[in-house]
Amino acid sequence: MSVAAEAPFVLRSDAAGVTTLTLNRGERFNPLSEEMLAALQAEFKAIALDDSVRVVVLAAAGKAFCAGHDLKQMQANASEAYYKSLFQQCSKLMLAIQKLPQPVIARVQGLTTAAGCQLVAMCDLAVASDNASFAVSGVNVGLFCSTPAVALSRNISRKQAMEMLLTGDFIDAHTAMQRGLINRVVSLEQLDTCVAELAASIIAKPAVAISMGKQLFYKQLEMGVDAAYQLAGQTMACNMLDASAQEGVQAFLEKRRPDWS
Amino acid sequence: MSVAAEAPFVLRSDAAGVTTLTLNRGERFNPLSEEMLAALQAEFKAIALDDSVRVVVLAAAGKAFCAGHDLKQMQANASEAYYKSLFQQCSKLMLAIQKLPQPVIARVQGLTTAAGCQLVAMCDLAVASDNASFAVSGVNVGLFCSTPAVALSRNISRKQAMEMLLTGDFIDAHTAMQRGLINRVVSLEQLDTCVAELAASIIAKPAVAISMGKQLFYKQLEMGVDAAYQLAGQTMACNMLDASAQEGVQAFLEKRRPDWS
Amino acid sequence: MSVAAEAPFVLRSDAAGVTTLTLNRGERFNPLSEEMLAALQAEFKAIALDDSVRVVVLAAAGKAFCAGHDLKQMQANASEAYYKSLFQQCSKLMLAIQKLPQPVIARVQGLTTAAGCQLVAMCDLAVASDNASFAVSGVNVGLFCSTPAVALSRNISRKQAMEMLLTGDFIDAHTAMQRGLINRVVSLEQLDTCVAELAASIIAKPAVAISMGKQLFYKQLEMGVDAAYQLAGQTMACNMLDASAQEGVQAFLEKRRPDWS
Repeated sequence: MSVAAEAPFVLRSDAAGVTTLTLNRGERFNPLSEEMLAALQAEFKAIALDDSVRVVVLAAAGKAFCAGHDLKQMQANASEAYYKSLFQQCSKLMLAIQKLPQPVIARVQGLTTAAGCQLVAMCDLAVASDNASFAVSGVNVGLFCSTPAVALSRNISRKQAMEMLLTGDFIDAHTAMQRGLINRVVSLEQLDTCVAELAASIIAKPAVAISMGKQLFYKQLEMGVDAAYQLAGQTMACNMLDASAQEGVQAFLEKRRPDWS
Repeated sequence: MSVAAEAPFVLRSDAAGVTTLTLNRGERFNPLSEEMLAALQAEFKAIALDDSVRVVVLAAAGKAFCAGHDLKQMQANASEAYYKSLFQQCSKLMLAIQKLPQPVIARVQGLTTAAGCQLVAMCDLAVASDNASFAVSGVNVGLFCSTPAVALSRNISRKQAMEMLLTGDFIDAHTAMQRGLINRVVSLEQLDTCVAELAASIIAKPAVAISMGKQLFYKQLEMGVDAAYQLAGQTMACNMLDASAQEGVQAFLEKRRPDWS
Repeated sequence: MSVAAEAPFVLRSDAAGVTTLTLNRGERFNPLSEEMLAALQAEFKAIALDDSVRVVVLAAAGKAFCAGHDLKQMQANASEAYYKSLFQQCSKLMLAIQKLPQPVIARVQGLTTAAGCQLVAMCDLAVASDNASFAVSGVNVGLFCSTPAVALSRNISRKQAMEMLLTGDFIDAHTAMQRGLINRVVSLEQLDTCVAELAASIIAKPAVAISMGKQLFYKQLEMGVDAAYQLAGQTMACNMLDASAQEGVQAFLEKRRPDWS
């Protein structure tokens, strides 16, 4: 097949403020190949500058969400330089999700493993269908999921993370929700409705509050509590001075809906 | 109404080592106005120096625990300097709870939102009635709960915190307990008994162990594990040299109750 | 009784890659005396250099797992120098578990308190029988569990940890699992089988991936997310270059079992 005829690695669709990015190698369980990582990075780079996008939904084609790195490609490029570059590229993408001004919701419709599980962990929110399952299973082929561990250990408790990393075992969607890896579990039929409700709830709020808040949230997590409060206080003062907050508070006091049009 | 006739913002009552501070603007859902923050700060300042106080219970009058900042007052003082000063004042109060030598138990009898939810998160322990509910709902008026996020994200997992912050949605008391925001849920009728039991359990221990331990607890949380152990080891050695620990250990070895009178 | 006739403080048995260390003062609830700490430290020191050991199981004789420090010995040596040295020795042991290349599984068959609870918290994984219970009860004798707090607060949420530390109350095994302090709860009869299954799952993976991964896991937890990703990426590149990962990936692509013999 020629390059021109090849289907795009990531599909993008935009509707009413919600941009859906769909991993488009469903037949191969959407591996994070160089090309897939580059395609995602390009989309996030564009979205970061696009005010019309209020929420990003990260979805996947096929039966699996994402099976992690492309082992075939990795095996074909066995060198330290290649691996270092690949993991750097992947980590950069993961951090781009966290640094994006808009919230990102993972829409998990099936199995997700290794760096696929990391992708879910790095999203701001995640919704899964009840047939979804999660593993950091690199250890099964002798490759401990070290980069996924960074994300996973910031989502769930350390003994739970350690068990998944050492055994490679799967957890089901309900267990993932109970532990904090995902926010909600619904049937596959209700998955889109559930994601749409979360997105609509976020879109109903002013973009400036959401982007300031998301940025502050991750920054303050890495600070001591005194410094965190100092930064958060400055952020709130700045947020409060924005016209959208002034209108929101005024509307609240007047017992009417805010006019943010 | 003259100032003299105005009811105090915070009521204080003392009984057998337990000091109860009651937010006293129940009809307005106890907003954290400048005056309320100042009244609380003054109480905590006095309590920190008062050896007769062993436990503080933070309670509230009316149907709500606390609805967060006083939006009316904030709207009437729309300037960067005012907002910065207000959030600084509020953060200082929040940190005063953590720095207080005595444990503080939140007694949550109803709805609590935004900085009210932050107040609960900053207390050492929290007990709620089963009709209580919790939200960080500033985002609904366009003001992301950035300072509450500091406290909330140190109590519950990050995706759960992010969902509350982005949507402004309420969680009920049982969900709050399951996630770690509060310690216990009981019926409204049993709320005082439950709080009293926790307080009595703490009062039965020597004050020096409790205050050393509380201080160490929050300090070591912000350290790497090696440094944390070094500080904790010094704290325990110091604690062990105190007459109360010597008597406690002696009594344990002699199978009698310690005499800490 | 002469020193020669005295039973060893720690029993060691080795079978098929699994080394079981058994606290051997069951009749005294296995207190962490100087001698017990030294015996454990010596075992971990030897195991760290022993490639034949793939997993360590930390078990205990008698009805209790471990009741914490040896209060009798502490009372007999009441000096600041002694206490500082004791807590330093104990913290060094706790950190040796975390720094050990091999995973350590706590096998908890009964009551465990204070530094015993800390021991469980410091292990990578923990399995308990359903009659096990957990407390950080030093506060009951006037000695706040400051060093156990370091480990406990890195396993469970802060309000849950604070409640245990301030009240000294026990939690049962199911509660401990729900909160993240332990991984699994089974009947006493099934305890060995459950531990053996976990150990077998780990032994089935290459040692190099497990030891690199374990080391990375605890290091990255103390870093900001950017630095954590940088270190984790280097670790994965290094892991991937190892012959065991090359064989593991090749076997996966060829749909056969890896030959790691």
